[in-house]
Amino acid sequence: MTRAPDAERPAGGRRGPAPTGRPTMRDVASAASVSVKTVSRVVHNYPFISDDVRGRVQAEIRRLGFRPNSNAVGLRRTDRPAGGIGVLAADLADPFYAGMLSAIEQVATARSFTTLVASSDEDPARERGLLGTFVERRLDGLIVVSADRRHDHLRPELDVGTRMVFADRPPQRLPVDCVLAAHAEGAGQAVTHLLGQGHRAIAYVGHSPVIHTARERLRGFQAALAEAGLEPHAVRTDAVDAAAAHRAAAELLATPDAPTALFADNPRLVGGVARAIAESAAPRTALVVFDDSELAQVLGVTVVAQDPRELGRRAAELLFTRLDGDRSRPRRVVLPTTLVPRGSGEGFGVALRSAGR
Amino acid sequence: MTRAPDAERPAGGRRGPAPTGRPTMRDVASAASVSVKTVSRVVHNYPFISDDVRGRVQAEIRRLGFRPNSNAVGLRRTDRPAGGIGVLAADLADPFYAGMLSAIEQVATARSFTTLVASSDEDPARERGLLGTFVERRLDGLIVVSADRRHDHLRPELDVGTRMVFADRPPQRLPVDCVLAAHAEGAGQAVTHLLGQGHRAIAYVGHSPVIHTARERLRGFQAALAEAGLEPHAVRTDAVDAAAAHRAAAELLATPDAPTALFADNPRLVGGVARAIAESAAPRTALVVFDDSELAQVLGVTVVAQDPRELGRRAAELLFTRLDGDRSRPRRVVLPTTLVPRGSGEGFGVALRSAGR
Repeated sequence: MTRAPDAERPAGGRRGPAPTGRPTMRDVASAASVSVKTVSRVVHNYPFISDDVRGRVQAEIRRLGFRPNSNAVGLRRTDRPAGGIGVLAADLADPFYAGMLSAIEQVATARSFTTLVASSDEDPARERGLLGTFVERRLDGLIVVSADRRHDHLRPELDVGTRMVFADRPPQRLPVDCVLAAHAEGAGQAVTHLLGQGHRAIAYVGHSPVIHTARERLRGFQAALAEAGLEPHAVRTDAVDAAAAHRAAAELLATPDAPTALFADNPRLVGGVARAIAESAAPRTALVVFDDSELAQVLGVTVVAQDPRELGRRAAELLFTRLDGDRSRPRRVVLPTTLVPRGSGEGFGVALRSAGR
Repeated sequence: MTRAPDAERPAGGRRGPAPTGRPTMRDVASAASVSVKTVSRVVHNYPFISDDVRGRVQAEIRRLGFRPNSNAVGLRRTDRPAGGIGVLAADLADPFYAGMLSAIEQVATARSFTTLVASSDEDPARERGLLGTFVERRLDGLIVVSADRRHDHLRPELDVGTRMVFADRPPQRLPVDCVLAAHAEGAGQAVTHLLGQGHRAIAYVGHSPVIHTARERLRGFQAALAEAGLEPHAVRTDAVDAAAAHRAAAELLATPDAPTALFADNPRLVGGVARAIAESAAPRTALVVFDDSELAQVLGVTVVAQDPRELGRRAAELLFTRLDGDRSRPRRVVLPTTLVPRGSGEGFGVALRSAGR
């Protein structure tokens, strides 16, 4: 990318910020209607300046983005401002993002780019505002885990050269690269594994399929059962968090024809479902969960693992390929999932002691 | 804060970016040495433009931060660019940050500020680079969880009006507000609780006390024992992660004079220490952990809980007080911790089934 040289202009230059965007003390003085000496005094924190003048000067300093030379000995800065990429996450509390972000940061750091992150909290309106912020803050490229179902409003940003890669969830009517996990196939792997253990009464516990990933996992679950000539034993899509998952699983397990196996569609449900199983009359009820987590590891829960690090790495590499000028057709990368048997899906139950304490 | 008006200047304005920093199509044309019509064609993605010209125009569009009017129907933008705060975290994989960030975002959103996050990975050099990025990207204020032991290099940023609040770890020789948890007192609470259960052989499992929080927790642990006329049964500071914590705890529990109680100094160690206890000859060994986590909840682990949400909320509110112009002396807010008994600290062991499967 072409970048502006970053050297301070000579003091005698013309008024107004330089086209490079690097304003001088003179620019601040002019904008605040004070002398250059006054600006210098504010910058170096001299006493005997009225609060009014100090406030006006500081406001202009901030507005214009003026940086005094003394900063050269302050924060580490390179000669040219570092490039930056923005990552829009949907929910930073999901452990999925820790691995993904760390891999993105690793790729970006190797290219001397910084990584800034923001979270939409699954709110499309908030997502639009944050993407606007990323663009206003002049980040060079974006990696987007979108909570939105439409993306055509991003087209003007593409047109002016902002590069984007969608991760985890595909773009709708926007010609950009994306990197996804094989959600439907992964859910199918879980079902196939449980069928292989002899289970026929397999129930689904998940959240409402409004977002792409949940929809895909439910679709894959149903398709794999259908292929074996079976129906889901039950489908609960009201498990919005661990507590709701605990309730849903406990209700399923308390029925006379309880399922012999449960599939939970995301890692935030592990604790709730595992507790329901440990507390139930059938503590060896099988459990497979989509996505790995420390909790699943400690509880010996069999999972269908996607690889958030690989997903982050591939998304970041695609983004840099585009920033390097690649204008080929948008690519869609689908990463496979892996079934990791740990006991809960193989007849040993979860490694949680039941209540009774 | 004073902000620049954001209206597009009339097309006939003078050359070079306006002092408000909002460049026109004419500025792009001039910088790229092409006609305004050519810029327009690139912006609207017309065919029949050479890759060379397209590349040059797009580079200038990016460099100058030019935004076409068509964006008005694209990303949601307000009339004036939204204010923004930057949060420097030390390690986004630590569940501590999910709560803290969510509370910061809530305060910021109520003020129509966006929140951008970056992670230093506990690397002071990386931290300096990221703080530089935040400043270059013109964020209005910063909340810093510092991995650095020196902060005087941030003084020039303070001088030019950047507002900062330190969270979780105190600033060194920098006159800024900070919000901390009572780490030493919290560790003391854990010891007092275990002493109250009759324990006298209490061992410490934690990571190296190079960072403030770990140092304080170890200090509080030792002080509370000293007050009871006791020495720590053992102090292990090599538990850098869950696997290392598992080894350290397993070794302690395998000795002839094993401790009857363990204190783990951070939530990332829960799984490892709990497994070591469940697998040991004394599965009722007491355990108290500093900081809450889902894993601790599911495993019935007694914790000393700090309140990451409250910490984030207070830090954000202090920051906005400063952004609103408060210039009073820096404040230091210390938040109390709470002991949450769940069984593991009260003689019931952890709710993890031992191996044997």
